[in-house]
Amino acid sequence: MLGRKLAVHLAQDGRVAELALVDVDAGDAETDVADVAEPGVAAALVASRPDVVFHLAAVLSGEAEADFDKGYRVNLDGTRRLLEAIRAVGGGYRPRVVFASSIAVYGAPFPDPIGDDFQTTPLTSYGTQKAMSELLLADYTRRGLLDGVGLRLPTICVRPGKPNRAASGFFSSIVREPLNGEEAVLPVPDGVRHWFASPRAAVGFLVHAAELDGAALGDRRSLTMPGVSATVADEIEALRRVGGEEAVRRIRREPDETIMRIVAGWPGRFDARRAAALGFRAESDFEEIVRVHVEDELS
Amino acid sequence: MLGRKLAVHLAQDGRVAELALVDVDAGDAETDVADVAEPGVAAALVASRPDVVFHLAAVLSGEAEADFDKGYRVNLDGTRRLLEAIRAVGGGYRPRVVFASSIAVYGAPFPDPIGDDFQTTPLTSYGTQKAMSELLLADYTRRGLLDGVGLRLPTICVRPGKPNRAASGFFSSIVREPLNGEEAVLPVPDGVRHWFASPRAAVGFLVHAAELDGAALGDRRSLTMPGVSATVADEIEALRRVGGEEAVRRIRREPDETIMRIVAGWPGRFDARRAAALGFRAESDFEEIVRVHVEDELS
Repeated sequence: MLGRKLAVHLAQDGRVAELALVDVDAGDAETDVADVAEPGVAAALVASRPDVVFHLAAVLSGEAEADFDKGYRVNLDGTRRLLEAIRAVGGGYRPRVVFASSIAVYGAPFPDPIGDDFQTTPLTSYGTQKAMSELLLADYTRRGLLDGVGLRLPTICVRPGKPNRAASGFFSSIVREPLNGEEAVLPVPDGVRHWFASPRAAVGFLVHAAELDGAALGDRRSLTMPGVSATVADEIEALRRVGGEEAVRRIRREPDETIMRIVAGWPGRFDARRAAALGFRAESDFEEIVRVHVEDELS
Repeated sequence: MLGRKLAVHLAQDGRVAELALVDVDAGDAETDVADVAEPGVAAALVASRPDVVFHLAAVLSGEAEADFDKGYRVNLDGTRRLLEAIRAVGGGYRPRVVFASSIAVYGAPFPDPIGDDFQTTPLTSYGTQKAMSELLLADYTRRGLLDGVGLRLPTICVRPGKPNRAASGFFSSIVREPLNGEEAVLPVPDGVRHWFASPRAAVGFLVHAAELDGAALGDRRSLTMPGVSATVADEIEALRRVGGEEAVRRIRREPDETIMRIVAGWPGRFDARRAAALGFRAESDFEEIVRVHVEDELS
């Protein structure tokens, strides 16, 4: 989803001469299908020496928790193969690698807000794989093998399209489905607080990261992105303002212990001042996130 | 070195029924030689279902920095193979795995002291591999596949025997060689501060970790070990008290830019209160560290 939106943005950017999209799932005619965790695939991808590599690929949190081996193979080994393939090009090739990490690298208990210096102790296999990939990215960068920037993306909300297998899917569903005249399931209590940015803001993060001065980052190559701290109740209130009472009535509460347990280990609020100082910008409240969804997806 | 000292300790412990030592380098008759990063080796090691696995294996910091591939193969892939081999045993097998991590998982700039919640942003490939292994250990533990405890060991000082390839080797050399009537090279300025514990204390950490109640650790399975914060000047003063002016005169200053650069990214002082609360104990000053060396190695 993010890859397609990024591609649309880049295709409209006059400075981008050539653009190659690769996804493990078949998308449309312009997307090549390949699995970066398979031998040789990453090498073929970087043979043309792109200036910027956006590495968004991931088995999402719900699936990485359900399928231990697949999560490590794609999220960790895939990342490592990609970095190794870049290293193998040689001849001074040192591309900017923008890696989509996640706030799932953090695990409770937390201070409030969570500062940029806080430890990464993930409570999911997905978060573990992202944190390990961040470490690789920093080490390859430090060794001069590439020029990496890791972005700890907030939960992207409102995701367009169908529900996916991420445990965080309901955060989008309870806005998206009601605005679409459909019922949505809410598996957690209203008081659950989390950290969000719109798909539009996330594309902005990725594009900004591609152009950032690497020296300004120093050795700590991963940054927590700015976002909106909101509870499920804040989400519902924003939905009410944009879609009315009728939309809110389409949310059906159906507690799910597994999702509650996963989400309980997730962060609610950050003080993302490093990223803010480097020029990354998100929405300022959840209503703005809902309005961005209406503008970008429903107009 | 630590493995041998641990083995001597365990061999004298009446509660240990069986003890298997494995090292990648040939040691003595009682040590099997094997490379845990090779396929099948880890599986053979855990086939007898040991209650406790001590995983100390490592390509040390200097060598991991000089040989990128070897460091990742042994320190990261070796750890992963071991954890996978334990997972593959099945049938409810869930051993305590004591993993020797290192304070090299931390990278400058630092607060002083460094608290238990501080981020791990290593500045060496060795530290990167240790931090990645810690993440694996926590995830395998969380999934119930084993019961891991990671110990971020201080720099072990005074190491007995010959100089090794660790960039931290001089911290021991400048005490060990002079007490032995030999010359030692000091490659960094006297003001360099670092975090130390004796080999005796380190064996104590490992043994204590083997018996710790895992539930007391929660999900954060790696602990910074207590230690002594001392400068090179403190080391020299302790050497003077134990070995006299004559010993101090055997230190030859020979600045080394590479070692200075590596060491500049290392931590100087921790507030290791989680480990202290769990009963881990180190020396109280550097003179005690020197006296432990004299008692254990020179008597």
